[in-house]
Amino acid sequence: MRIVVTNCNTTAQMTEEIVQGARAAAAPGTTVTGLTPAWGPESAEGWLDSHLSAAAVLDTLRTYDGPPYDAVVLAGFGEHGREGVRELVDVPVVDITEAAAHLACLLGRRYGVITTLDRSRGQIEDSLETAGVARNCATVLGTGLAVLDLTTDPTRTETAFLTAATQAQAAGAEVLILGCAGMTGLQRKLSSQLRLPIVDGVSAAVKLAESLVTLGLTTSRTGSYARPLPKRRVWGRPQPT
Amino acid sequence: MRIVVTNCNTTAQMTEEIVQGARAAAAPGTTVTGLTPAWGPESAEGWLDSHLSAAAVLDTLRTYDGPPYDAVVLAGFGEHGREGVRELVDVPVVDITEAAAHLACLLGRRYGVITTLDRSRGQIEDSLETAGVARNCATVLGTGLAVLDLTTDPTRTETAFLTAATQAQAAGAEVLILGCAGMTGLQRKLSSQLRLPIVDGVSAAVKLAESLVTLGLTTSRTGSYARPLPKRRVWGRPQPT
Amino acid sequence: MRIVVTNCNTTAQMTEEIVQGARAAAAPGTTVTGLTPAWGPESAEGWLDSHLSAAAVLDTLRTYDGPPYDAVVLAGFGEHGREGVRELVDVPVVDITEAAAHLACLLGRRYGVITTLDRSRGQIEDSLETAGVARNCATVLGTGLAVLDLTTDPTRTETAFLTAATQAQAAGAEVLILGCAGMTGLQRKLSSQLRLPIVDGVSAAVKLAESLVTLGLTTSRTGSYARPLPKRRVWGRPQPT
Amino acid sequence: MRIVVTNCNTTAQMTEEIVQGARAAAAPGTTVTGLTPAWGPESAEGWLDSHLSAAAVLDTLRTYDGPPYDAVVLAGFGEHGREGVRELVDVPVVDITEAAAHLACLLGRRYGVITTLDRSRGQIEDSLETAGVARNCATVLGTGLAVLDLTTDPTRTETAFLTAATQAQAAGAEVLILGCAGMTGLQRKLSSQLRLPIVDGVSAAVKLAESLVTLGLTTSRTGSYARPLPKRRVWGRPQPT
Amino acid sequence: MRIVVTNCNTTAQMTEEIVQGARAAAAPGTTVTGLTPAWGPESAEGWLDSHLSAAAVLDTLRTYDGPPYDAVVLAGFGEHGREGVRELVDVPVVDITEAAAHLACLLGRRYGVITTLDRSRGQIEDSLETAGVARNCATVLGTGLAVLDLTTDPTRTETAFLTAATQAQAAGAEVLILGCAGMTGLQRKLSSQLRLPIVDGVSAAVKLAESLVTLGLTTSRTGSYARPLPKRRVWGRPQPT
Amino acid sequence: MRIVVTNCNTTAQMTEEIVQGARAAAAPGTTVTGLTPAWGPESAEGWLDSHLSAAAVLDTLRTYDGPPYDAVVLAGFGEHGREGVRELVDVPVVDITEAAAHLACLLGRRYGVITTLDRSRGQIEDSLETAGVARNCATVLGTGLAVLDLTTDPTRTETAFLTAATQAQAAGAEVLILGCAGMTGLQRKLSSQLRLPIVDGVSAAVKLAESLVTLGLTTSRTGSYARPLPKRRVWGRPQPT
Repeated sequence: MRIVVTNCNTTAQMTEEIVQGARAAAAPGTTVTGLTPAWGPESAEGWLDSHLSAAAVLDTLRTYDGPPYDAVVLAGFGEHGREGVRELVDVPVVDITEAAAHLACLLGRRYGVITTLDRSRGQIEDSLETAGVARNCATVLGTGLAVLDLTTDPTRTETAFLTAATQAQAAGAEVLILGCAGMTGLQRKLSSQLRLPIVDGVSAAVKLAESLVTLGLTTSRTGSYARPLPKRRVWGRPQPT
Repeated sequence: MRIVVTNCNTTAQMTEEIVQGARAAAAPGTTVTGLTPAWGPESAEGWLDSHLSAAAVLDTLRTYDGPPYDAVVLAGFGEHGREGVRELVDVPVVDITEAAAHLACLLGRRYGVITTLDRSRGQIEDSLETAGVARNCATVLGTGLAVLDLTTDPTRTETAFLTAATQAQAAGAEVLILGCAGMTGLQRKLSSQLRLPIVDGVSAAVKLAESLVTLGLTTSRTGSYARPLPKRRVWGRPQPT
Repeated sequence: MRIVVTNCNTTAQMTEEIVQGARAAAAPGTTVTGLTPAWGPESAEGWLDSHLSAAAVLDTLRTYDGPPYDAVVLAGFGEHGREGVRELVDVPVVDITEAAAHLACLLGRRYGVITTLDRSRGQIEDSLETAGVARNCATVLGTGLAVLDLTTDPTRTETAFLTAATQAQAAGAEVLILGCAGMTGLQRKLSSQLRLPIVDGVSAAVKLAESLVTLGLTTSRTGSYARPLPKRRVWGRPQPT
Repeated sequence: MRIVVTNCNTTAQMTEEIVQGARAAAAPGTTVTGLTPAWGPESAEGWLDSHLSAAAVLDTLRTYDGPPYDAVVLAGFGEHGREGVRELVDVPVVDITEAAAHLACLLGRRYGVITTLDRSRGQIEDSLETAGVARNCATVLGTGLAVLDLTTDPTRTETAFLTAATQAQAAGAEVLILGCAGMTGLQRKLSSQLRLPIVDGVSAAVKLAESLVTLGLTTSRTGSYARPLPKRRVWGRPQPT
Repeated sequence: MRIVVTNCNTTAQMTEEIVQGARAAAAPGTTVTGLTPAWGPESAEGWLDSHLSAAAVLDTLRTYDGPPYDAVVLAGFGEHGREGVRELVDVPVVDITEAAAHLACLLGRRYGVITTLDRSRGQIEDSLETAGVARNCATVLGTGLAVLDLTTDPTRTETAFLTAATQAQAAGAEVLILGCAGMTGLQRKLSSQLRLPIVDGVSAAVKLAESLVTLGLTTSRTGSYARPLPKRRVWGRPQPT
Repeated sequence: MRIVVTNCNTTAQMTEEIVQGARAAAAPGTTVTGLTPAWGPESAEGWLDSHLSAAAVLDTLRTYDGPPYDAVVLAGFGEHGREGVRELVDVPVVDITEAAAHLACLLGRRYGVITTLDRSRGQIEDSLETAGVARNCATVLGTGLAVLDLTTDPTRTETAFLTAATQAQAAGAEVLILGCAGMTGLQRKLSSQLRLPIVDGVSAAVKLAESLVTLGLTTSRTGSYARPLPKRRVWGRPQPT
């Protein structure tokens, strides 16, 4: 089985880290292909970045010409595009935001999300709400760290995460979710220290995608996620000739 | 005061109709400037179109180099982009989806939305929910007509609208909302026939935008809608050189 | 256009301040007429006052014999009566509670209301809920100041407001609402200091009322807000003769 | 124990019927005193009537000079005033709307309310919502009969009730509530025919009031229902002298 | 009238205390019969205990062979079994969790529950939610005391309760609920000290059960709570012979 | 990896069918062990059965003495016990009700559940609600077929399912869920006919359990699902000696 994992930004280094995380979670027979959009933001932080990212990710999948794949994992935590990709492709589509929440609901009564900047909290809340899994979300908290800063100083990142984790537990969280694809890996370091399950969205999405593929399930074409209608679409500013 | 009204698709004819509707609603001192994105879908029907449209609208406003404006009206019913535009510009931003709902809440206890294709219902429901005005929405109904077909046969459009209106009333709607910018004008023909107020989102958004400008109010920069962070962003597929 | 603004209490001085605020917000062609009920409470603080006020305001409008008007603004924050007035008059009716919330939703993701006494919080929450705009309300907070004390010591009022504003921001508010008609004017002084938009309900209601009138929209008579049935009604304790 | 039952309108005949219903439900040691407001609407149908009624009921209790009482039952289904009366008196206050819903929740998973005119549905929904018992309400339905017509043709009333009952069951109701104090008595005739429990609000409120009195419980003065502040209040239009 | 009160655990001493509380609340003509399950947990703390308790309570009522009874009170705060008992018996069934909440809603705008261990909070929240009375619940708080420790050191229990009461008030509670049948009696000691109404579920359930019996109301057999289907059921591990 | 799948009833034939379904979904390295409770109901239909089943399932797992296992799948659709099992065992626990809903949310905007008897609808709704996945549930519908009748006449079962499926789609469902473990297998026959994804809870739960095990995730012990406290518990009526 081949799973395509799309980064939501143009930073290839981040795609690699995400692919590593995805491969660590994947079953033996699963091949993971990472895609980095050729355009979009270098990191997605805020609504404008998220809207730009959604179009770029759609364009990336629309023009993909590699080997056939069985599922798509969207590796932008809280980013837009999920529903459009469900229209576009015929295979199952799993977004890391919803994936983490689905697994977290199985592990405790309330979960908390720990993300990067405070400005991303609203997007994540909306994404969980429309995915239908917000009911058991106790809180979404920021660490104050930008996406591209997560890996520059691992100790600072861990400390910021632990501080937010304490707040999340006080708000009722019994499970934590890594609220950024760039945090992948942190769950292994911090879970035993916090004595709490920590769910990484990339890993969760890979397992859910594999599950759907194995069960022969894919997106319903009845209603919301019908195939895009054929029409004229231009994907980016026309160039002067 | 100048209000920029952005069409969500690339069909200039539709921009003109929207601008006409906007001008009909505008106060004497208000200038309405219509913008048609240079890229994007020729009509927005479904999530993929909506995600593409959001990026194109943002790009259109980002690269706008006309006279200064005092407010932005986003004329795509149920389309994405609202929050990103709030980050981008320093003036008030009003989306026609939320605008129609805000005014409808003042006119009756429950409102209904009548839109084009059934596939757009989910987007509209989500847009109303995240805008905070879904509580009094009795139903969102489709007419089965595509966006670009609305004007080809006005009698068919009116009949389809009246059929859906009856269903909406049965579901509890006391006020109706035109669920597509391309329906602008229909409210004048059908309101007295139906003996119900019908709210057009474009008109509603123009009045709300004027209201905010007059009161000196604009988007809060504290929290969700802070200015976009400076970073590298590419707005469309790089061209081969 | 003429807008009638009804004070919810019998204190004429407060009507004047409200009318001043309304006039400051009104468009050039709008005439604002203030009405002070001849009976009711001298200030509305709590449910009993609110119920008394609602009947008095209805009676005031029912027996009004001045020049015709185009809209009614109800200037009691969190007070009852809104729906009854919608039944009574044929023109649009806008309550300052809902009006402030409608505009606040356009300016940030969550809003907070800062009111007078803690005892008023429940009424305001219920009023926002039934108006359909409570979803984005982060908090309703009291300042501990009574309605008629707001103007006696402006410095104390400002200090109390600023303290509550800080709490509201901590609760997630990105926009603030003045939760009492008697606070009108405060938004101009404090908005830049707090670097947050502050919405005054009186101003907001005037603009929304003007918007509805301009668009030719008025209350739906289908369903909830049908005209009152003709029947015997006595408006106050019969006097001994 | 003495329970004061206040009619919400000025029709003394209706007070008598309500008192009869209350007495039929009361415990041996309970004395029921009926109060008919000296002013207000002759029947409460719609918001305007409800607001007028609330003030009249408050005035009636405020000026009551009979023997001391232990609890108040408010016998207006869906009418305003509940919270104001809780501020006014020191004894428990039970509104028949909430009372019926509280008992109905104990008898089945979802309940339905059958009321008089459709225009009253909204008020009832709001009253249940703010009382905290709307969650298990499957539907609120009208019979098309006006309050004062309920007793003129009992067969018509029963037929209309049975028709609405069928609709309510289809909507999921497992228990029915009589949505008007003037329907009291109907539960005895129709419950076995429908093979469903039917809850009458007047009876329910009497039992709940007795329960609270017996347990020594009364309204909390902390927070929302603090005593009315001393101030100048005028209860009705001052008379020309 | 005879009311059967079932303890949720096997501790007969606790049954006696509950029966005492029930008798103190019962009307003169009401006989209270306490039942202690012959199997189950010695105290119910957590979900496993609650599930075990539910089956044991059902078995206790199923095999009851004493004098006929008119109602059942389930005296396990937050414990499972309520709906199953409604299927089993033909008389009204009142659970102390919901009973306390129903009365609390009549006494203040928001109520708080103070229970034993933190681990019980989730069960109580779910029980209130599915009973339809969670809307006005401000908070559910633990005292850190185990069920069987409540009576060992009354001073410690009171102190822990008072501490939690302060937190509950800060969270908006205007009324408190004793969140464990073993706390019965505490309301008399602490209500005046806290100047808040405190509702004891056992007393509340007795009054509600009496109310239903007096009004001739019992569980609806239409829909959810139909009689159990005849089938083979084994109530506990078959013994080796 | 070994997954223990517990039937919720004592019918061994049904355990076998469930185990077959589970094995069909399991990964190559997964061993599925079916457990049939030695006591409980022969089929679970209604609340009483569900409460009895929960205790029996807990007892079955508590006294299990087979080879170690890595996860538990609870194969009773809408039945109680989930949370208690999470307390009892140290490995991940997945209930087929929640499992089906989690996967269904990934496949369409709204899902519908088709179950056996109407009386089970309430339990399923509550189970989805407390699991945190009810938001996207469009409807829960019964087929009128008892659990043990599902396999006696496959044609009748399919016809009944298809009828309910049409109703579910009319209610907005874009994905269907088999609302009984005894329906396992039906998804393969009917999915292409209905042109809709159909999710079987047993298969879904197996995949989710495997996912959690692979990712090294298990139930949080912080808060709700702490280990059961050591205490005296009796699991079934003591036998006369």
